[in-house]
Amino acid sequence: MSRVGAVTQNVQADQPVGRVVLVGGGPGADDLITVRGMRAIERADVVVADRLAPRGLLRDLGPGTEIIDVGKTPHHHPVPQDEINALLVDRARSGKYVVRLKGGDPFLLGRGGEEVLACHAAGVPVELVPGVTSALSAPAAAGIPVTHRGVSHGVLIISGHDDLDVDVLAQWPHTVVVLMGMGRLRELAANLTHAGRASDTPVAVVQSAWTPQQREVTGTLDTIADRVDAAGVGNPAAVIIGAVTEVLR
Amino acid sequence: MSRVGAVTQNVQADQPVGRVVLVGGGPGADDLITVRGMRAIERADVVVADRLAPRGLLRDLGPGTEIIDVGKTPHHHPVPQDEINALLVDRARSGKYVVRLKGGDPFLLGRGGEEVLACHAAGVPVELVPGVTSALSAPAAAGIPVTHRGVSHGVLIISGHDDLDVDVLAQWPHTVVVLMGMGRLRELAANLTHAGRASDTPVAVVQSAWTPQQREVTGTLDTIADRVDAAGVGNPAAVIIGAVTEVLR
Repeated sequence: MSRVGAVTQNVQADQPVGRVVLVGGGPGADDLITVRGMRAIERADVVVADRLAPRGLLRDLGPGTEIIDVGKTPHHHPVPQDEINALLVDRARSGKYVVRLKGGDPFLLGRGGEEVLACHAAGVPVELVPGVTSALSAPAAAGIPVTHRGVSHGVLIISGHDDLDVDVLAQWPHTVVVLMGMGRLRELAANLTHAGRASDTPVAVVQSAWTPQQREVTGTLDTIADRVDAAGVGNPAAVIIGAVTEVLR
Repeated sequence: MSRVGAVTQNVQADQPVGRVVLVGGGPGADDLITVRGMRAIERADVVVADRLAPRGLLRDLGPGTEIIDVGKTPHHHPVPQDEINALLVDRARSGKYVVRLKGGDPFLLGRGGEEVLACHAAGVPVELVPGVTSALSAPAAAGIPVTHRGVSHGVLIISGHDDLDVDVLAQWPHTVVVLMGMGRLRELAANLTHAGRASDTPVAVVQSAWTPQQREVTGTLDTIADRVDAAGVGNPAAVIIGAVTEVLR
């Protein structure tokens, strides 16, 4: 694993200190986690799991492993980030080997950096096990390589939750992948077209990649929002914009 | 695994047909392959391996497994892509379970799409196992999250081998990751500065991430090329441009 940055030295000498290991769980299927990530889970005293983490892996853990689900509160909201941070620090300070299990990769739109900073501030050792990101593997699950010779030389990955500079997106001639973008898909497609990207630019949407529920919808910037609505497709999904969506079809 | 696109039907009925499985080997360490990828290797009749694939995994395979190294020819050039394609098709047509083992992820700057097309054209079934890409995990190995709240909302990934539109790169306000870019690092940094990106933009270079040889160099667009030269750092490396390089330090 990678030691992430410096560990501060404000730990009481008489206090047992465990560690936090941020593990990328991959895009959905239980066996698309890394070997290292799987071993970390098998060794864990505590697993703090997101909604989109590969939860099947938790089924076979012994009764001595504490599993904490932070994907949904009883009121259907995710647990706030500062509460998750406090939980990780608290369990590690009591000497536990704490696995923070996330979907995808912890350092791409996964707020892993915030959890590392919380551990640093508390003097808790923190390590990272990278994961297969949905930004690349959801396209792959639908037979879409995000780069392809003569078609696309790069990929730009963004979250649909954040403010997007559509002028830059419209000028970028290669692949765009949007995660968490289904709620604003119609607005995004319209804005891209308005900013100069061709309205017949191919678009694919892949929902629940690498799970039995995987679904795909294809179209163009002009048609994709209607097609997604008609198919009833929503998050979790990746939106892939560009000619690569057609290269293997 | 994912069935990649449609399989054409030009196979002779009396011909045994195996399959090709493109496996992403991850960034370097043997245990950063996926569980699924490892199992595919264990089952393989033939493994066709790149130079940056996790070669330690091949050591324990039985003598019945054919291992073909396409990373370097005797003249130190990599085997041409069309020869690799022909090899995959040939072995699969003779009924073998052929694993094409690559570094990183097959569908990000890995030419996996070209191998899929070659298999399609030959009527050979082809599947994909995604991998942990170096584009995200090399930064992670140096404690760099490519996105971080309030700092970067997205990441743009390119190959240094391809022609780059520096105007778009300079306007993109978030993280840029360049793979295979060490040979043109000085030119890239100068062009980005000339196109308007601040010369004090932080840059990190991570060589041989997740291996015992990992090395890191940090600087700015103005200083990074000199520092990399002074340190003698070269490929394989990821170049990470943007404020995220400093967020966990």
